[in-house]
Amino acid sequence: MSITIGHHLIKRLAQIGARHIFGVPGDFSLLFLEQVAHASHLTFVGCCNELNAAYAADGYARLAGIGALSTTYGVGELAALSGIAGAYAERVPVICITATPPLEAMRRGALMHHSLADGNFENMFTCYKQFTVAQTRLELRNAASEIDRVLRACWLEKRPVYIQFPSDLIATEIPDIVSPLDLRLPLSHSAGLSQAVSDITQRLTKAKRPALLIDADVDRFDLTALVVRLAETYGMPIVSLAPAKGIVSDLHPYAMGSYRGAGSAPDVREAVERSDCLIAIGARFTDVSTGLFTHDLGAAFLIDVQPFEVTVEDTTYRRVMSHDLMERLLAAAPQGVFPPPPHRSASRSKADRPDNPGRLTQDSFWAKVQGFIRPDDVILADTGTCSFAAGALPLPENTIFVSQPIWGSIGYALPATLGICLAEPNRRQILFIGDGAFQMTVQELSTILRLDLNPIIFLINNDGYTIERLILGAEAAYNDIQPWAYRDVPGAFGLAERVRSHVAATEEELAAAIAAAEKNSGASIIEVLLPRMDGPGMLAKFARLAAEFDFPQLREQPVQVE
Amino acid sequence: MSITIGHHLIKRLAQIGARHIFGVPGDFSLLFLEQVAHASHLTFVGCCNELNAAYAADGYARLAGIGALSTTYGVGELAALSGIAGAYAERVPVICITATPPLEAMRRGALMHHSLADGNFENMFTCYKQFTVAQTRLELRNAASEIDRVLRACWLEKRPVYIQFPSDLIATEIPDIVSPLDLRLPLSHSAGLSQAVSDITQRLTKAKRPALLIDADVDRFDLTALVVRLAETYGMPIVSLAPAKGIVSDLHPYAMGSYRGAGSAPDVREAVERSDCLIAIGARFTDVSTGLFTHDLGAAFLIDVQPFEVTVEDTTYRRVMSHDLMERLLAAAPQGVFPPPPHRSASRSKADRPDNPGRLTQDSFWAKVQGFIRPDDVILADTGTCSFAAGALPLPENTIFVSQPIWGSIGYALPATLGICLAEPNRRQILFIGDGAFQMTVQELSTILRLDLNPIIFLINNDGYTIERLILGAEAAYNDIQPWAYRDVPGAFGLAERVRSHVAATEEELAAAIAAAEKNSGASIIEVLLPRMDGPGMLAKFARLAAEFDFPQLREQPVQVE
Repeated sequence: MSITIGHHLIKRLAQIGARHIFGVPGDFSLLFLEQVAHASHLTFVGCCNELNAAYAADGYARLAGIGALSTTYGVGELAALSGIAGAYAERVPVICITATPPLEAMRRGALMHHSLADGNFENMFTCYKQFTVAQTRLELRNAASEIDRVLRACWLEKRPVYIQFPSDLIATEIPDIVSPLDLRLPLSHSAGLSQAVSDITQRLTKAKRPALLIDADVDRFDLTALVVRLAETYGMPIVSLAPAKGIVSDLHPYAMGSYRGAGSAPDVREAVERSDCLIAIGARFTDVSTGLFTHDLGAAFLIDVQPFEVTVEDTTYRRVMSHDLMERLLAAAPQGVFPPPPHRSASRSKADRPDNPGRLTQDSFWAKVQGFIRPDDVILADTGTCSFAAGALPLPENTIFVSQPIWGSIGYALPATLGICLAEPNRRQILFIGDGAFQMTVQELSTILRLDLNPIIFLINNDGYTIERLILGAEAAYNDIQPWAYRDVPGAFGLAERVRSHVAATEEELAAAIAAAEKNSGASIIEVLLPRMDGPGMLAKFARLAAEFDFPQLREQPVQVE
Repeated sequence: MSITIGHHLIKRLAQIGARHIFGVPGDFSLLFLEQVAHASHLTFVGCCNELNAAYAADGYARLAGIGALSTTYGVGELAALSGIAGAYAERVPVICITATPPLEAMRRGALMHHSLADGNFENMFTCYKQFTVAQTRLELRNAASEIDRVLRACWLEKRPVYIQFPSDLIATEIPDIVSPLDLRLPLSHSAGLSQAVSDITQRLTKAKRPALLIDADVDRFDLTALVVRLAETYGMPIVSLAPAKGIVSDLHPYAMGSYRGAGSAPDVREAVERSDCLIAIGARFTDVSTGLFTHDLGAAFLIDVQPFEVTVEDTTYRRVMSHDLMERLLAAAPQGVFPPPPHRSASRSKADRPDNPGRLTQDSFWAKVQGFIRPDDVILADTGTCSFAAGALPLPENTIFVSQPIWGSIGYALPATLGICLAEPNRRQILFIGDGAFQMTVQELSTILRLDLNPIIFLINNDGYTIERLILGAEAAYNDIQPWAYRDVPGAFGLAERVRSHVAATEEELAAAIAAAEKNSGASIIEVLLPRMDGPGMLAKFARLAAEFDFPQLREQPVQVE
């Protein structure tokens, strides 16, 4: 039996769990798209541009477990690169497939369009190599094995990979491989695993103040259930770094809240920094996660669990898989379930405030929103005021929270909503996005509505880049944007009838808009008018710290400009 | 006297000719933007996203001689990268300034937002190195000299350069340098230049069929006047490669037309391929310029003039500046001006056809447009049917033609129009762009109208990616796009009153719209409805060749898809 290389790739995409592939056509990729168009289990989702397609693939991958992107050589793939770098930073598995000029043309250095016309065909590969964990340029002799190698790396490492697919190979036949893609996880190194488990359980059983500190990798490596069972088994509070928002519900009895260095609640800070057995899972102490490096773990006994290794204070055990380690820790535990730790903060859920006819503020808006969020919702928060405010909302059980706390690309969340609606059509999707961010990637709203998807979009219109204004240039023109007539955007896309639009400047209007959105089975856009210098509580403090961190001159004095 | 590093850079940007800098703010760049905001001779132009800003800077640079871009680290600069790669391919000098985290934070490998949060701060630099001719990360000890080195490289090589500007250095003071930026061209190697001139004049004075073959570099290195004088002095026809469109007017008596390999007019083909002294200036024989490598120069005697060297058949003289060479060739010439060569094709200008009430076609549309174009217009043609059709229009004297014949990024020309309107406000700017391309970068129309700029935009609505349909997938969904209500887009941007919108499906409607646009002093958008499978004459043939080139299987048979 033989199969074309394109069909082999399509088969493998199905086996790894991709039911959609996002992208923009280009001449080199057309034959692959033709193959996809005839495949029963894979749908091409044409986006308005490649960066948006990359964001959509990222959003899709966060919920479906894998994402796929199809671009054309050079011009298309480079436009997507920032989105792929974001997927790397945020640990999201996206398979980037770029169709290149024919292999023979590249080998002889032909001066092709979509290249620099200098015979160099290595530069795009070099760029993608920075932001992917495996890369390949397919050749006839190794196409199947290379596809399999690269897809497996994506699956295991939960990070992007890159496939250059020469156009002349797409319909070329190779022997079919009957066995499915090998997605088994590698085995842990047995002795190291046992020693690590022994070290940790010894410490854990004697610890007075054990705690779990979780980060986004807990979601990416599917460790949430193990985290919760560990907490229950050993009576440990679960503290989240900002990127772990929503992984364990804020309302879970063992959930203690969010650690952000000196900006943490005092009990949370003590639980982390004074822990005599702090089991950190996938933790990355980034500027945003630590209130600009105000964390201090010097007095804590740190067990640093990473996906493929664990470090117990100063000893690193390599090739120890995090899920193996956690399962063994559970197996080694004393019987029974410990009660929730006594030092847990009081309930974080705020009562929904009564409707108030006054003009909306960040505080009143988010208080109202909190009552709107239901279990099982997917909440998307774009970078800026939205991610700061939504990140501080207590979320109900089984809510999924999506943002980009590390890469922080404004505009990401609108195309990501496209991906998430396709990955999880049975959940309600709620997007919070600022006006500046919305303008970045606006055209993908067209695709969302064209495909009859039904997110609820809160468009926070605060007249420009408020997060930047809080850092520097409160009144500066460089933080201004054109005030769009946002409610007319769906109509300009020819899709006004697919969406209900509302504008809310007051609490009453917001309440009415939310009530209408709850009843509407289709898409809703609620434009929320907020004051331009109103940031959610934590943001103002963070912005001041950021300004002083970025621009040391600002610490002493207002900056001198002529 | 001392000066901040930011102000030194601003001063140098003024000296090199940048009056505008395009970009999007980000926290690392805010202090630099604050400095720019207070500079009298440099204006920040905030764009809706970074790729659009890069395209705007590219368009600006093509007319102003230099362009500048301000982005933030990682997320912003990577989003712009495809636009910068395009500037490299098309030889356009753009200065990319990216504000990075503080130098000290990078040195200690801090886990910063907008990075991969792994302590690696080299990956963005590596990417930009692929597409720029000089790069630097500023440090205190060498900031001024590095800025000067990199800007000079941009000026000399007419290609992008890259400056990483750590946020903590922006307001740091250094000794001021009084002398202006050194923009003098390097001297040619004297002996090599003389020998080359001697070789070429010997050949040229005896040649029976000398010809000039010009490419885009003639414009970039300001050689147009020299080319025309050479043609007149030696009686040579001027043949253009596609990217040289508009550099020498199609109506110039020495202009012979366009060479495109086997697709050339027979007299043009013979003039090039049988020339016994073919002086090619900046020529790059790309797929698009040669009808997919159907050129054959085996029988021609080729003199390959590149910006910094010349090759006479098999002998290369390095460090010979093209302008020095051409001036010396003029000085060495016999007295008098040769008449235009007799083998010039008949006039290429077509008569404007009478208005016809029938539905518009590509043929009737472009015939009508031709009568609309005036001397001194700037014509922008986005990649696809527009660039193919507009590239074949005879243009009046002193018309400037802008497209991306090598990089071929659809959507480029709308943001490029923003740059060009600012660079050349006194010329009329006419943009031709397809519907798929328009959707890619639509938000920059908002900036164009916000700044009260007045281009005339022909939006060719042919219901999807027609150029791709002509290659493969005529009826395929992957070549479809959402049919927007394009006339409502300016209103959605809150700028309906800044533009006159028209829709033309018939020749009568087109005539009326064009008449209205001629009278309107503000911006106009004319949406032109054309059949989805109607491509300009040359394109259908090129598309078939491209399909066979990319997908060899198509040569024998229609592709087999299951």
